[in-house]
Amino acid sequence: MNTVDRLSTSELKMLRSLTQKKFRQREKKFILEGWRGLKDALNAGWRLDLLAVLRSYLDSADYAGLLAQAQQRRTPLREISEKELGEISMTVHAQGAVAIAHQRSVEPDELLAVREGLFLLVDGVTDPGNLGTLIRTADWFGAAGVVLGRGSVELYNEKVVRSAIGSLFHLPVAENVELVEFIKALDAAGASVAALAGDGTTDYRDVTVRPLTALVVGSEGHGVTPPVRAASAQVVQIPRSGKAESLNVAVACGVVLAHVRHTTPKKGG
Amino acid sequence: MNTVDRLSTSELKMLRSLTQKKFRQREKKFILEGWRGLKDALNAGWRLDLLAVLRSYLDSADYAGLLAQAQQRRTPLREISEKELGEISMTVHAQGAVAIAHQRSVEPDELLAVREGLFLLVDGVTDPGNLGTLIRTADWFGAAGVVLGRGSVELYNEKVVRSAIGSLFHLPVAENVELVEFIKALDAAGASVAALAGDGTTDYRDVTVRPLTALVVGSEGHGVTPPVRAASAQVVQIPRSGKAESLNVAVACGVVLAHVRHTTPKKGG
Repeated sequence: MNTVDRLSTSELKMLRSLTQKKFRQREKKFILEGWRGLKDALNAGWRLDLLAVLRSYLDSADYAGLLAQAQQRRTPLREISEKELGEISMTVHAQGAVAIAHQRSVEPDELLAVREGLFLLVDGVTDPGNLGTLIRTADWFGAAGVVLGRGSVELYNEKVVRSAIGSLFHLPVAENVELVEFIKALDAAGASVAALAGDGTTDYRDVTVRPLTALVVGSEGHGVTPPVRAASAQVVQIPRSGKAESLNVAVACGVVLAHVRHTTPKKGG
Repeated sequence: MNTVDRLSTSELKMLRSLTQKKFRQREKKFILEGWRGLKDALNAGWRLDLLAVLRSYLDSADYAGLLAQAQQRRTPLREISEKELGEISMTVHAQGAVAIAHQRSVEPDELLAVREGLFLLVDGVTDPGNLGTLIRTADWFGAAGVVLGRGSVELYNEKVVRSAIGSLFHLPVAENVELVEFIKALDAAGASVAALAGDGTTDYRDVTVRPLTALVVGSEGHGVTPPVRAASAQVVQIPRSGKAESLNVAVACGVVLAHVRHTTPKKGG
């Protein structure tokens, strides 16, 4: 690994520009930080333009396998300095590697082609940490895909990517989807669609689980928007035993997805 | 409300100093931001030294009730400027009010006096947002108390206080507790104690629920520490259906607490 070139000025400039949303959207690329995400991206066959690594990691046997895998995939490998990495990475404990990855565009129709499984629909979640945690939670419970409505935070925001911890590469995520239309299409496909709301009318343990089931979660402040709520066949809530104002959206999502996953789907239910 | 004094130099200095952990620990006080937390603190009879509010809120009918409640409790009320508030509050959308509150010291023995209920034990959680969300989740599911081990982030860190959204005032939280000793005392009181771990040996749906039940969660990176794990009668896990590396600690906690809360305790079980 001693022949690795230093990051060029233009490559550093590209990395820097991708810390901004407008450049991510123009280039259709994003920044991936850390080894865990890199491993998942490589294993998922995600397209990478560049991998920049601190000297100490280039010489470490622990990372040789991953670096070889990236090189087999013809990903240009560069050495980056601590200072340059600090400019690009938002993480306090930068993990020594950043990559430029291509965004993957998922069409709603691709997701609707899935006839069995669990979907998470996200209606206006604005906190990037919450969105990343939602994607990771959906992945843990084996969701077939995640669908983001128009009001949600940008999928390739670095905090979303970081808090999803690789799950972004495990399941398809569609962005900027018209959720009411999507729910209508799910209904037509025989799905059970349940929105989650603090004032829902149905206990989440009574949610209808079908081979195709979708859970809709809303924004931290305002919940699911009225048109999306109206389009959902059920509005479920998690009973409160204490005094908390609300549950965090990712926690609430986890509680319901665990229940749905651990309930046997009723055919034609 | 037109006769409210401006914040004095010494009051501003005290507010500024309480943004630092060492001063919070020395003074045994902390900063409370926003109206929601203020309402919960007042309702819980929490001791406040000062309440500083933007001019526009002082004149707003919407907040008159809360301000009157604070004044009945003899809390000095001051006007703060946008600039001063910006120096103290970490929140992008500062909510127009900050207070100085006294820390409340909860002894483990006070919690052990509770003979029935649900406890959350926190072993080394370092992310303040996660700790706040854990407290909020425990509150939602009606926990009798939260117990923090020595390795956890400081309870009165502003991000913990903010993400707990008032739940800090709803249930007792003990800090710097020797968890192995606490678990032994819970055992002696007939409690069921279950640690949560990715490689746990028991499915969380098989957790033993007794009138007194405790769930132990560990740090984001390393999980429950070996001595605490060894002291716990059960080590439970949440089955994974997908490929995510892990569940967020607050999400995992929510899944198990929901199950425990929604399971009827078996007397003597």
